[in-house]
Amino acid sequence: MEEIETLWKEVRELSLGDSDRVDHLECPPTPLQFLRDFVCQNKPCIISNATLHWPALSSWTHDSYLTGALSSADVSLHLTPHGQADALVPLDGSLCFSSAHVQRMPFPEALNLITNNESPSKLVAYAQQQNNCFLSEYSALAADCDPHIPWASEALGCLPDAVNMWIGNHLSTTSFHKDHYENLYAVVTGQKHFLLLPPTDVHRMYIRMYPAAQYSYSHDTGEFKLELEKPDRYVPWCSVDPYPSPEDRDKQLSNFPLYFDGPKPFRCTLNPGDILYL
Amino acid sequence: MEEIETLWKEVRELSLGDSDRVDHLECPPTPLQFLRDFVCQNKPCIISNATLHWPALSSWTHDSYLTGALSSADVSLHLTPHGQADALVPLDGSLCFSSAHVQRMPFPEALNLITNNESPSKLVAYAQQQNNCFLSEYSALAADCDPHIPWASEALGCLPDAVNMWIGNHLSTTSFHKDHYENLYAVVTGQKHFLLLPPTDVHRMYIRMYPAAQYSYSHDTGEFKLELEKPDRYVPWCSVDPYPSPEDRDKQLSNFPLYFDGPKPFRCTLNPGDILYL
Repeated sequence: MEEIETLWKEVRELSLGDSDRVDHLECPPTPLQFLRDFVCQNKPCIISNATLHWPALSSWTHDSYLTGALSSADVSLHLTPHGQADALVPLDGSLCFSSAHVQRMPFPEALNLITNNESPSKLVAYAQQQNNCFLSEYSALAADCDPHIPWASEALGCLPDAVNMWIGNHLSTTSFHKDHYENLYAVVTGQKHFLLLPPTDVHRMYIRMYPAAQYSYSHDTGEFKLELEKPDRYVPWCSVDPYPSPEDRDKQLSNFPLYFDGPKPFRCTLNPGDILYL
Repeated sequence: MEEIETLWKEVRELSLGDSDRVDHLECPPTPLQFLRDFVCQNKPCIISNATLHWPALSSWTHDSYLTGALSSADVSLHLTPHGQADALVPLDGSLCFSSAHVQRMPFPEALNLITNNESPSKLVAYAQQQNNCFLSEYSALAADCDPHIPWASEALGCLPDAVNMWIGNHLSTTSFHKDHYENLYAVVTGQKHFLLLPPTDVHRMYIRMYPAAQYSYSHDTGEFKLELEKPDRYVPWCSVDPYPSPEDRDKQLSNFPLYFDGPKPFRCTLNPGDILYL
């Protein structure tokens, strides 16, 4: 066991160095530098001052601009009681992999639900749809951003497969997951906090099979119902909650020691104008 | 077994496509193209017309130029009876991993031994020393070549760790092996034939442990002696001889079916002016 822990440590250091920070560039790299220093090495980096020329960085700070531009657009809104979609939540004494209640509605109504998260209704709304939604549901905003990130497109030798849009509030949380794509994540307004672990740390995630469940929300009662999918479907998902509630904390720490006793994940915060490559 | 064979096939196709040829560029790529299309994908390629501007391509075709420039240089010459250094050869009824008899001698004498391979003496000479020898033993020739390959240095973000020189004849054979480096192999005069297998084919190589042995050559008797190293040392080496002698052929084919019954290795031939990236 000691040998394998040394191996984990060495593999981690080899792939990411011994820093606990994500590399940070103050301006966009050349395509060659981006490919050589980050893409080829599967190494994340933050690129600041990457999108300051996008009109979106100023215009999207005004809700009235967004509701005007998207006044007649229907968008997909994901509704959950606590802001955790695609995450493990308790159901009948054990954990299930829950998916949000998804509802298409006019954008102004969706934005109202996202921003009015102070209301007594137990509801967190998150606008997302990972099917190239920026160019479909949000096409009225397309001209506010560059159609692609030129230095990344040249480095990767292709245009984006998909451009997605996420609009959430401070309660919107995405649980640990992996993506099968090269991702460039640009923050336009607000902030986004990331916790990153390298692929070589997969053994610290305690990936287990969880039954899939689905939220449904009743606008009449303002209540969520969470039900297992029929027929049964099982989803492999990370068991670790990196920010457990006070009552879950001891259980998480004792159940998942490889995560909690091991090296800290890479933490970073993106601000408007920043892009995270990961 | 059928499933794992399908997996091998798919991994091979995924990493190298379904071609049985090494990619071939008619002129040097840009650093970005080289990095993106070959280095990042661990994909070999031949680049033609890559070194035609090197003075070496004309001057080295004359033995008199070489012996003049290196008249006072000592070089390392590797001597074996059949041209197979660092290869499996029979010893007392089983196979051992044999290393050549290495001797430093004045270059003109070495070149004479390399080129006079028609003589009755059972001796194949091969000038090599993989310790940056081009810039040490052969430094008198350094100005005949570019000090590095600019598009590769820019792509990889560094200058070469080592520049080596090999001078052999048609009997010089290198057995299957792996290198831990990015290699750029340039042919200046003559031809070099390569057989390449992707790393995902390692299971087809039948890597086994062989006892290390050492040739020693007596100039007096003109005979080689092959003796096991003392103390014993074992070397993991590929068991497959891709070009077995007629008497070994049946044994090779039946002992190593994954190699001989599987997909053919990538074959390529380099000519003067060509570079192989691998």
